[in-house]
Amino acid sequence: MKRSLGRKTLIQPAPVWVIATYDEQGKPNAMAASWAGICCSKPPAVCVSLREATYTYHAIKARKAFTVNLPSCDHAVAADFLGIASGRDIDKLAVAGLTPVRAEQVDAPLIEEFPLNLECALVHEHTIGLHTLFVGEILDVKADEGILNDKGRPAIDLLRPFVYAVAEGVYRSIGETLGSAFDIGNALTRE
Amino acid sequence: MKRSLGRKTLIQPAPVWVIATYDEQGKPNAMAASWAGICCSKPPAVCVSLREATYTYHAIKARKAFTVNLPSCDHAVAADFLGIASGRDIDKLAVAGLTPVRAEQVDAPLIEEFPLNLECALVHEHTIGLHTLFVGEILDVKADEGILNDKGRPAIDLLRPFVYAVAEGVYRSIGETLGSAFDIGNALTRE
Repeated sequence: MKRSLGRKTLIQPAPVWVIATYDEQGKPNAMAASWAGICCSKPPAVCVSLREATYTYHAIKARKAFTVNLPSCDHAVAADFLGIASGRDIDKLAVAGLTPVRAEQVDAPLIEEFPLNLECALVHEHTIGLHTLFVGEILDVKADEGILNDKGRPAIDLLRPFVYAVAEGVYRSIGETLGSAFDIGNALTRE
Repeated sequence: MKRSLGRKTLIQPAPVWVIATYDEQGKPNAMAASWAGICCSKPPAVCVSLREATYTYHAIKARKAFTVNLPSCDHAVAADFLGIASGRDIDKLAVAGLTPVRAEQVDAPLIEEFPLNLECALVHEHTIGLHTLFVGEILDVKADEGILNDKGRPAIDLLRPFVYAVAEGVYRSIGETLGSAFDIGNALTRE
């Protein structure tokens, strides 16, 4: 028997990505976001939903660009801080000891200390309700050499991303491997 | 030194959600999707991006509704199968031994065996490129009693969702707790 829980965003898990921007005056800022994901393969694109109340919302509108920066487990405290404080009040990156570096392809900063960075050009926005969904086309991915596997791709066990457990309000690391995608399901038709 | 990896969807991790629909003739179908996430708090909404080539794309267009069904680690093989085969060719739910049950709030089926189910009404769609992003307003969440914690919320360690490691093409479980969100970051300003 299923229990009805009502109209709630109770689905697990959500990513923890850090969105970095320049504001209208050129000040770098960053915030943690979990209402986000990949949303297209060709062109490669991500979406992130932000409230108008955030400083980042207005910076993306002004600059038509943002970066997605992936914190590793070692950066959980810094990423959480970037989700608590507002860039209106303080220089969050300075307080967190993080270094903004101008992106090559878009008008936004990368966070140097985070191992994976996506340079995104704003290509679409849609106000859903309290949140506005921004779609960014990925114009480049930058990665620390140390997180790349032998195929030159960012390995999840070197990257060590973490997720946001929505119902509990905690961060969780990534666990063991269950199997290969587009592979283990073939067992059902081989039987 | 950062290495440039080009225009790719190389960001980790992505959720594994199963999208269930009725087609125009009323046949239930389901597919696994990872280009998906929560996209609004008020109204509560999720987004999922699908290629026009999928059977589910046309079912969502026809019925203006879908459900998001969360497979646990125990359902990894079934979920993978739902991402390989097409509902055009076979009755995927029957092959996977899964039971479609009509949702209460929307014109779509829930998957009975999966522990968490979101009933979503299509409120927006936007073609980005190869993928079209569908936004669904969550009209109800249904959960198995056995996954609820003492606050009546779906506990991640009972739910046992898994993620898709994009660069490796494997499924991974959820790991250990790193800390509380909107909390551990306060250490940076208390110092």
